[in-house]
Amino acid sequence: MSSVFGHSFRVSTFGESHGAGVGVVIDGLPGNLIIDLAIVQEWLDRRRPGQSPITSPRTEADSVECLSGLENGRTLGSPLTLFVRNTNVKPDDYSDVNKVFRPGHADFTTLQKYGIAAQSGGGRASARETIGRVAAGAVAWQMIRRRHKDFEIVGWVRSVKDIALDQNLESSLDLVATTALVEKSVVRCPDINTSKKMEEAIINAKNLGDSLGGTIRCVIRGVPTGLGEPVFDKLEADLAKAIMSLPATKGFEIGSGFAGTKMTGSEHNDALIRKDQKIGTLTNNSGGIVGGISNGEFIMFNVAFKPVSTIFMTQNTLDKNGNETKFKPERGRHDPCVLPRAVPMVEAMAALVIADHVLRQRAGTPFIEL
Amino acid sequence: MSSVFGHSFRVSTFGESHGAGVGVVIDGLPGNLIIDLAIVQEWLDRRRPGQSPITSPRTEADSVECLSGLENGRTLGSPLTLFVRNTNVKPDDYSDVNKVFRPGHADFTTLQKYGIAAQSGGGRASARETIGRVAAGAVAWQMIRRRHKDFEIVGWVRSVKDIALDQNLESSLDLVATTALVEKSVVRCPDINTSKKMEEAIINAKNLGDSLGGTIRCVIRGVPTGLGEPVFDKLEADLAKAIMSLPATKGFEIGSGFAGTKMTGSEHNDALIRKDQKIGTLTNNSGGIVGGISNGEFIMFNVAFKPVSTIFMTQNTLDKNGNETKFKPERGRHDPCVLPRAVPMVEAMAALVIADHVLRQRAGTPFIEL
Amino acid sequence: MSSVFGHSFRVSTFGESHGAGVGVVIDGLPGNLIIDLAIVQEWLDRRRPGQSPITSPRTEADSVECLSGLENGRTLGSPLTLFVRNTNVKPDDYSDVNKVFRPGHADFTTLQKYGIAAQSGGGRASARETIGRVAAGAVAWQMIRRRHKDFEIVGWVRSVKDIALDQNLESSLDLVATTALVEKSVVRCPDINTSKKMEEAIINAKNLGDSLGGTIRCVIRGVPTGLGEPVFDKLEADLAKAIMSLPATKGFEIGSGFAGTKMTGSEHNDALIRKDQKIGTLTNNSGGIVGGISNGEFIMFNVAFKPVSTIFMTQNTLDKNGNETKFKPERGRHDPCVLPRAVPMVEAMAALVIADHVLRQRAGTPFIEL
Amino acid sequence: MSSVFGHSFRVSTFGESHGAGVGVVIDGLPGNLIIDLAIVQEWLDRRRPGQSPITSPRTEADSVECLSGLENGRTLGSPLTLFVRNTNVKPDDYSDVNKVFRPGHADFTTLQKYGIAAQSGGGRASARETIGRVAAGAVAWQMIRRRHKDFEIVGWVRSVKDIALDQNLESSLDLVATTALVEKSVVRCPDINTSKKMEEAIINAKNLGDSLGGTIRCVIRGVPTGLGEPVFDKLEADLAKAIMSLPATKGFEIGSGFAGTKMTGSEHNDALIRKDQKIGTLTNNSGGIVGGISNGEFIMFNVAFKPVSTIFMTQNTLDKNGNETKFKPERGRHDPCVLPRAVPMVEAMAALVIADHVLRQRAGTPFIEL
Repeated sequence: MSSVFGHSFRVSTFGESHGAGVGVVIDGLPGNLIIDLAIVQEWLDRRRPGQSPITSPRTEADSVECLSGLENGRTLGSPLTLFVRNTNVKPDDYSDVNKVFRPGHADFTTLQKYGIAAQSGGGRASARETIGRVAAGAVAWQMIRRRHKDFEIVGWVRSVKDIALDQNLESSLDLVATTALVEKSVVRCPDINTSKKMEEAIINAKNLGDSLGGTIRCVIRGVPTGLGEPVFDKLEADLAKAIMSLPATKGFEIGSGFAGTKMTGSEHNDALIRKDQKIGTLTNNSGGIVGGISNGEFIMFNVAFKPVSTIFMTQNTLDKNGNETKFKPERGRHDPCVLPRAVPMVEAMAALVIADHVLRQRAGTPFIEL
Repeated sequence: MSSVFGHSFRVSTFGESHGAGVGVVIDGLPGNLIIDLAIVQEWLDRRRPGQSPITSPRTEADSVECLSGLENGRTLGSPLTLFVRNTNVKPDDYSDVNKVFRPGHADFTTLQKYGIAAQSGGGRASARETIGRVAAGAVAWQMIRRRHKDFEIVGWVRSVKDIALDQNLESSLDLVATTALVEKSVVRCPDINTSKKMEEAIINAKNLGDSLGGTIRCVIRGVPTGLGEPVFDKLEADLAKAIMSLPATKGFEIGSGFAGTKMTGSEHNDALIRKDQKIGTLTNNSGGIVGGISNGEFIMFNVAFKPVSTIFMTQNTLDKNGNETKFKPERGRHDPCVLPRAVPMVEAMAALVIADHVLRQRAGTPFIEL
Repeated sequence: MSSVFGHSFRVSTFGESHGAGVGVVIDGLPGNLIIDLAIVQEWLDRRRPGQSPITSPRTEADSVECLSGLENGRTLGSPLTLFVRNTNVKPDDYSDVNKVFRPGHADFTTLQKYGIAAQSGGGRASARETIGRVAAGAVAWQMIRRRHKDFEIVGWVRSVKDIALDQNLESSLDLVATTALVEKSVVRCPDINTSKKMEEAIINAKNLGDSLGGTIRCVIRGVPTGLGEPVFDKLEADLAKAIMSLPATKGFEIGSGFAGTKMTGSEHNDALIRKDQKIGTLTNNSGGIVGGISNGEFIMFNVAFKPVSTIFMTQNTLDKNGNETKFKPERGRHDPCVLPRAVPMVEAMAALVIADHVLRQRAGTPFIEL
Repeated sequence: MSSVFGHSFRVSTFGESHGAGVGVVIDGLPGNLIIDLAIVQEWLDRRRPGQSPITSPRTEADSVECLSGLENGRTLGSPLTLFVRNTNVKPDDYSDVNKVFRPGHADFTTLQKYGIAAQSGGGRASARETIGRVAAGAVAWQMIRRRHKDFEIVGWVRSVKDIALDQNLESSLDLVATTALVEKSVVRCPDINTSKKMEEAIINAKNLGDSLGGTIRCVIRGVPTGLGEPVFDKLEADLAKAIMSLPATKGFEIGSGFAGTKMTGSEHNDALIRKDQKIGTLTNNSGGIVGGISNGEFIMFNVAFKPVSTIFMTQNTLDKNGNETKFKPERGRHDPCVLPRAVPMVEAMAALVIADHVLRQRAGTPFIEL
């Protein structure tokens, strides 16, 4: 059982890179909720290959079709199914690939697990699998906003290789304005100068046939207090799982993160203070979650992405008979840096986690308060 | 629903810091398996408070009792329940605490979520909750080793504040020897000199009433290939969730982690090579998991722990009526640095994840191979 | 994974017939809810052996202890653990049993499944396992009533062998009065004359060393509309599973049940009518659930229990080496008819299902209505 | 969360009666397994409307399309998605329906639950939802047979109203031959004379605009020992849930069922005997499951179906404003008796349960035996 996520807001993704298409079934949506498919399409367009010179040239319109769950734009309470047909499938592109275990790819481990591997493309291990996640994330986002008007998620590329955006945008941040800046940048970095440098680095890597990694920062605002569970299903634990389930991720940190390990307790503790009519904290080292439960401050986390495994350089590897060989892909369509397209994936996974905990908290709210 | 973890090897922990005790129900163990409760007790002893001058002086023997599931040392296939009675409960220690929201603690968020909070101790938010996890981890570890003889887990403190162990122990590592070195150190750092420095730093912080954070590295050897699922339940995603569900964790990274984002693809890709009769990789930037599935190399991850929230210094905060106040705990038993006792917690959570995926993979193995 | 039930109100039972004791962990209770352990004890007393001349003479007080989750009688939102120690364990009683596969018992199937079986008593296959269910049911019942004041469950013995109570008590029923009548009867049949006949039949069977089966009817009132899911988790499907998971059950029918198959659609359809300010139905062939979802009418179902497998007569069977043998238990404590003690078990399982769907429906209620 | 079934073999159905189509995602299939879509189509053809004069005249080819999970007829270990487009959608047929709550239908309860109801057809409450179940059942059946060669399921109509097939076919049964007889009968009753009488009764009811109910018997052969869990997930409990989740079901009984309640223990207990090299039982009152676990004998259960709710007669009901009204559907396509088409639905649900427990038992098998 590989492709189900969530407890009360439950998504099942399906589809292979080079099969009929990819999609998602979302189970748990309340009834009579307006869901705008145009917003889903916008999210998919941000994830889409071919959107800029630095992304994969695979030309897929990625047009979403709703197979169930909506009538006249409203949810029926039944599973909502979204499907995107594959149109630009080129099985031949992968004929050389099938003979070897590509370094960094899941070829070897998939074969070990299943005794079979898709003959073209990465099957489920393709980034194309994330279409179902992004589509579901766009639905989750709409559901949450229907109930929590101030809810916003914005992610951006914070570093590519060693080119990093140093400013801490999030505390003073106008998230709506930031989103606009992010979307203006082909790299999805809201600072124009840094974006420029990142773009150049990516193009250089591409010209060499090499690839780059980097980090994404994601900020979530308007999360109500009380989301998350105190033990295993801590909100940060579910976010960590969601994010680390994205292809190519190598690390997750929340609030002060790894840097926070160098602080003392007296520096790290966030003092509680009054903010208007609410209770908040002076600093936000916790990253908006304390004891696994949201405290109403913004949630902030960073994600590490490794450099893309597909490179157009000769590498040592083994063929499927276990013999040493050299491998250099001749054809195929890949991104030299996954970060720009990964931003909506990160946002989508965050939305799925928050949506699930919004529904869970409705179930668990003390009776008196409901 | 707060305290259930795992799909096929499922644990339910229960118990509050200052109630009757804490424990765990483990459901999913195969029958007729030898489980040694003495090993469980050893793991608990490593987690126990009062084990050294730098840990909390709370004196709890933490003796484990088996309430169900074993007969003559063998599993019956039924739920195995382990229970540890609280003996050194001092509710009065917390009378001052109940009036304020302690900075860094879950007091505010718990009250927001449940409309009530345990009047003494941290309730479920106490580190005492991890007893059930460690006990279950020691059972999981035994189960896995019964099937995979080379399976080993060893964690150690890699840094306290800015005192870090630089060597990469894991590649050349004799894990059994390392475990011995780790256990000789009160800090659980296998290098004597570094351990000494860490110990001094912790004692200094303690004398100031302050606290420190740090990082733990964990290495898992002898994991068979094929564990983990390719999409949401990637092995690293489940590890991330498991680890980030531990109290005070702020970050998780696997393999090359955040440092890997600064590498190029040509540097990062692990070349496949033959190792004896098996297929392995030349480097291990992937950290033993590719595409969510174990490749047979050792799994390696780092965990960030924030400095402990309980400090014996005056802090600004709000009382439970929302008024500004100062807070300085007068009494109470806490660790100035959680890292040494966190090592078995990290190992236990890793064992729970691997045990779950061992059982899941048995269910999913291609029919032909079974 | 054998012993977890429910999606949002989740119970994990544990414990063997002849181990330390039996219990249950309940996860998902909202916080700040008053739970009265005296009510839990009352339910257990109704399930307890030795309560009358027609039940097993095993003398167990079955005193419930709360191990976690409550403070000053209020839920903390954390797992609530209830435990009953076994006191009257007589392992020797079962020495003869261990040599054979007892007809009608799970000895053979347990060994096939687990490769081991508890050496004394039935292990998890003992009716003693139901203590955890009944205790959890008494908690669930209290939780539901806190929110739905009119909620009531009453079960009674409707037939023992061919002695049946013909009246349809439920439509005109004063459930509180019925409960009193039920509890006055050692058989738990609310009609004095029928009860008398049933009692005699049971005593006759007991004297012969034989056993009897029968049916229980259960009625649930005050269930709000909208509980249950339209597809797999239909309310009647979850009730069927819950009930058919009780030992010795052989059948479940709801509303018109098997008799309803002989009606025509025009006879069977329940006409919708106004009842005070609400919408109800004229007849109740549906048994209070339409399309898997409660309609506000009373829920009514029947359960078939086979005659108890333990009889004190000589039977043909196989020993554990597979050789033919005769078996007649010499000692042991068993009920000649399980029905009287099964009434609280049936009520408890019904309460667990309703509690789960109450919480699920809170999560899923349309946003506008909440 | 309404439409997910199973623990290790997990199906998610989706789609409404009058939307784009209906389908299912199956997660948990092992890799490298041959699945023949022609067999899936055969199962769907047996469920299809319009297959005989006594079924609904809705003309749907119900051609199955595979959207994911198969490559060259082999499973990839990834989710297998099957989809059937709706082609004969006539929304106008239901315009009169939208004004009233139809007796026996889920109109009222759906609206209570979701605050909205599909404007045409029954939405998820339509029998069309079962297409996903039947398709998944046909996949489950193939998976099981790949591992357990003797595995067979056959269901038949045992009664329509009071016309019943008395013979106990199952003990002496050649299931393959029976299947052929069943499929020769438009009613799916293997006895020609009884089938004829049933057919006449159904046609009479149809001519009156009325409808009939009845019972289905289902027999499963070749189930290995050891399937099922001893407590909540007893094999009969999961079967009961699966079956009672089908539309129009009112009862489930296994083995001796309700009739067994009139037997004594000495009559009911199945003596263990040797059968060739295996251990079996002389009689089969248990219905192939003891203590929740399969014993290797055939599994036998009966299902009660109420008469179809849609009748073409004038009925009293309420309109959606709560006012009394008369209702007589003018148009629409419905079966006067659901039993013939329900046979493959029952078989499919049985296959889903067995498939799930086959995978679960692989996970849980004692280590020594694997």
